[in-house]
Amino acid sequence: MDAPSSSPTLLLYNGVIVTMDPRSRVFRNGAVVVAGDRIHAIGQSDDIFREFSHLADDSLDLRGRLLLPGFVNTHVHTSQQLGRGIADDVDLMTWLHKRIWPYEASMTELDSYISTLLCGIELIRSGVTCFAEAGGQHVSGMARAVELLGIRACLTQSTMDSGEGLPEKWRSHSTDYCIQSQKELHKKHNNTADGRIRIWFGIRQIMNSTVELLLKTKDAAEELKTGIHMHVAEIPFENQVVTRTRKVEHGTVTYLEKIGFLRENLLAAHSVWLNDAEIGFFSKCGVKVSHCPASAMRMLGFAPIREMLVAGVCVSLGTDGAPSNNRMSIVDEMYLASLINKGREAFISGTTNPTAVPAETVLKMATINGARSVLWDNEIGSLEVGKKADLVIVNPFSWSMVPLHDCISSLVYCMRTENIESVMCNGKWIMKDRKIMTLDEGEVISLVTQASSNLLKRAGIKLPNKMNFL
Amino acid sequence: MDAPSSSPTLLLYNGVIVTMDPRSRVFRNGAVVVAGDRIHAIGQSDDIFREFSHLADDSLDLRGRLLLPGFVNTHVHTSQQLGRGIADDVDLMTWLHKRIWPYEASMTELDSYISTLLCGIELIRSGVTCFAEAGGQHVSGMARAVELLGIRACLTQSTMDSGEGLPEKWRSHSTDYCIQSQKELHKKHNNTADGRIRIWFGIRQIMNSTVELLLKTKDAAEELKTGIHMHVAEIPFENQVVTRTRKVEHGTVTYLEKIGFLRENLLAAHSVWLNDAEIGFFSKCGVKVSHCPASAMRMLGFAPIREMLVAGVCVSLGTDGAPSNNRMSIVDEMYLASLINKGREAFISGTTNPTAVPAETVLKMATINGARSVLWDNEIGSLEVGKKADLVIVNPFSWSMVPLHDCISSLVYCMRTENIESVMCNGKWIMKDRKIMTLDEGEVISLVTQASSNLLKRAGIKLPNKMNFL
Repeated sequence: MDAPSSSPTLLLYNGVIVTMDPRSRVFRNGAVVVAGDRIHAIGQSDDIFREFSHLADDSLDLRGRLLLPGFVNTHVHTSQQLGRGIADDVDLMTWLHKRIWPYEASMTELDSYISTLLCGIELIRSGVTCFAEAGGQHVSGMARAVELLGIRACLTQSTMDSGEGLPEKWRSHSTDYCIQSQKELHKKHNNTADGRIRIWFGIRQIMNSTVELLLKTKDAAEELKTGIHMHVAEIPFENQVVTRTRKVEHGTVTYLEKIGFLRENLLAAHSVWLNDAEIGFFSKCGVKVSHCPASAMRMLGFAPIREMLVAGVCVSLGTDGAPSNNRMSIVDEMYLASLINKGREAFISGTTNPTAVPAETVLKMATINGARSVLWDNEIGSLEVGKKADLVIVNPFSWSMVPLHDCISSLVYCMRTENIESVMCNGKWIMKDRKIMTLDEGEVISLVTQASSNLLKRAGIKLPNKMNFL
Repeated sequence: MDAPSSSPTLLLYNGVIVTMDPRSRVFRNGAVVVAGDRIHAIGQSDDIFREFSHLADDSLDLRGRLLLPGFVNTHVHTSQQLGRGIADDVDLMTWLHKRIWPYEASMTELDSYISTLLCGIELIRSGVTCFAEAGGQHVSGMARAVELLGIRACLTQSTMDSGEGLPEKWRSHSTDYCIQSQKELHKKHNNTADGRIRIWFGIRQIMNSTVELLLKTKDAAEELKTGIHMHVAEIPFENQVVTRTRKVEHGTVTYLEKIGFLRENLLAAHSVWLNDAEIGFFSKCGVKVSHCPASAMRMLGFAPIREMLVAGVCVSLGTDGAPSNNRMSIVDEMYLASLINKGREAFISGTTNPTAVPAETVLKMATINGARSVLWDNEIGSLEVGKKADLVIVNPFSWSMVPLHDCISSLVYCMRTENIESVMCNGKWIMKDRKIMTLDEGEVISLVTQASSNLLKRAGIKLPNKMNFL
């Protein structure tokens, strides 16, 4: 290996390095050299120390802590963070028509900025270094926040050109406007913030999309070499509508296959109600799936994750938005992904299967599969020489993780956000020793309290009391 | 109200007081007076302040924080904490025969003490002030730990007088020995530690119990006016064995009803595989259920919780043991209880029901229903004058809970252990500003690391590597 270039060089040593590389290597006492924004070397501590210590500008003794690639959250509505708690325990129609649509339609660009800042804090605290926006309001606000947060993101505009019951403001968007506005966002924001921001195309969901929007989106994404983020097969009703109105045998995925929309650059969120043939379509076409365990449990149902994995579909993890889940933590989603997919087997075979979707699979979902899902696995998702330095330090020596008999399963089953100690993105510390380095957290919380309260007033959302408030 | 007696008096004011009393009162700006180990007054801050501030030895401005009754964890294996991570992603027979039984059979009294200390730290950090031991090894070790931790507990010995495949050490226990040893434990430990410890009778599970053990346990518990803690209807196999060998139509609950075992003092853990008639038996007899969402998802299946609640069964929450769940946090179990029971509806009606088992119901499960389940609701489970001062201060002003549009649902959906700031049990702070007051946490973690490693060696448990360790 060559010596690092003139960029500042950091040596991290004496850690358990969980690389998530193709050989699933874990160095029990390993080290990593970060030069500039990239990983320059990785290996056994002794070897790396001998070869690079004299070149390092700085070094950090990990003292047995775990070092991992940063987690990738492949489905999150950053715009919805100010709406956490506005739609708990209500039915789906109330959720959408009385709460989420009025809320989102009333957002300002500043609201999107503040919402993304708060969401970003939660993402960083759960070890996320890259996220895929599910499609929200005011991409420029998101981009400003991402620039400040120091995190990596694929940003997407919420896009709809049809559908019933939409707020007045959204009804006027033509298909061409949808495409054109996204192309402009791409031109303005793609590859900004030191290359941390990419712009994707969005399709909110099939019931808000004409076939023209789907096909033009496919072409535009191909032309700009970027991805498409779409909610797919969320509820049985969606499949029923598609079957009836678009003349196919079974639901959204069958229809999307028929029109040639399924490609490697499609990130299909949720994908709960798929039959075997549809899983086959995803596999054949290389579609990526964002599995959101908490949100699915609450709102949608049990996605056939084990079956998708068996079929070779790339499944990653997402949190969904705050009004669908409330906890925006990939740490919790890892725990849930394992539990839920073991439990779901009870409805297939009569008993749970505690061996289904094991810890190492879940860890892949949160790292390398996440990177593949956002089409960025050439640079992130694992700790390998030449990749970007997006990494997480986990302190496993506290009450929540000891004793540490099996550190891989403990990362999935025991770890809490409290164990995430430091987070680096693009070679820079964005959290160090549990302090967010890129902004003043207290200031953001003040902004959030004011902005969210004003937003609910503008949107005319009033929540009933759940108990007897005096 | 009279002035407090000569005990030290503490005034907590300016808080959101979630009482969980029969009227579900929440004081938006409330106060509580603690005198000695009991709640002396509760009400609006202004009123309480006017009446009691001159009598208070000390006062604490809650500055808008939430004050709640301490949570009750109604099913936890404190002895299994040293075995966290020893049985992840393995099938049930491996779990029991190759991991848990060898582990538990190799425990010393000191191991039980250390295991309970670690478990207790996690319980306190998740706001638990009272727990029901599921039945473990060395009650004297548990009792020593509980005395030190300052928490409240119903302790139970793991009790079996029959069954196949048991470790040699356990095979010799006669029915009479089982009863006699528990009576002795009751005599020695019941009502010790300032009344914080109660001793219950244990039945590990039906397949390890003769009918004599069941009936003698029932009589002994009645004689000593205490409860019985038993794993009930955990897996379909259990029901099949009972149906075949004990000549009943459907499983454990039907059999227990037939022999007259179902009483108000029975705490039935899990209770996953019950039919409608059996839910009716529980309701009629006043049996209490400990619902353990995470453990059930992973190992057992989906308990009919909504149906039990509709039938009037008292359902509370438990974590189960560390090798079944890994996170011993009632905070997480509240979140899961709501998600899982909404999701489960998908398998009944074809879609999830986001309104099922709402936040206020879950909060009851974790507090007053917990207290009823451990037969202690005359003194704990809600904030009411005359009850014991077991309480939790939640700081909701951090990234994980803001914005706070609906504080009741935020407690269930957003709260993390990080938000639990202070915990009082029996009128004494056992955690203050996130510092455990009753022991040195670092010292416990050192003890745990040593003891758990030795224990695994003695038990001959070796775990395979989940990745490619170098």
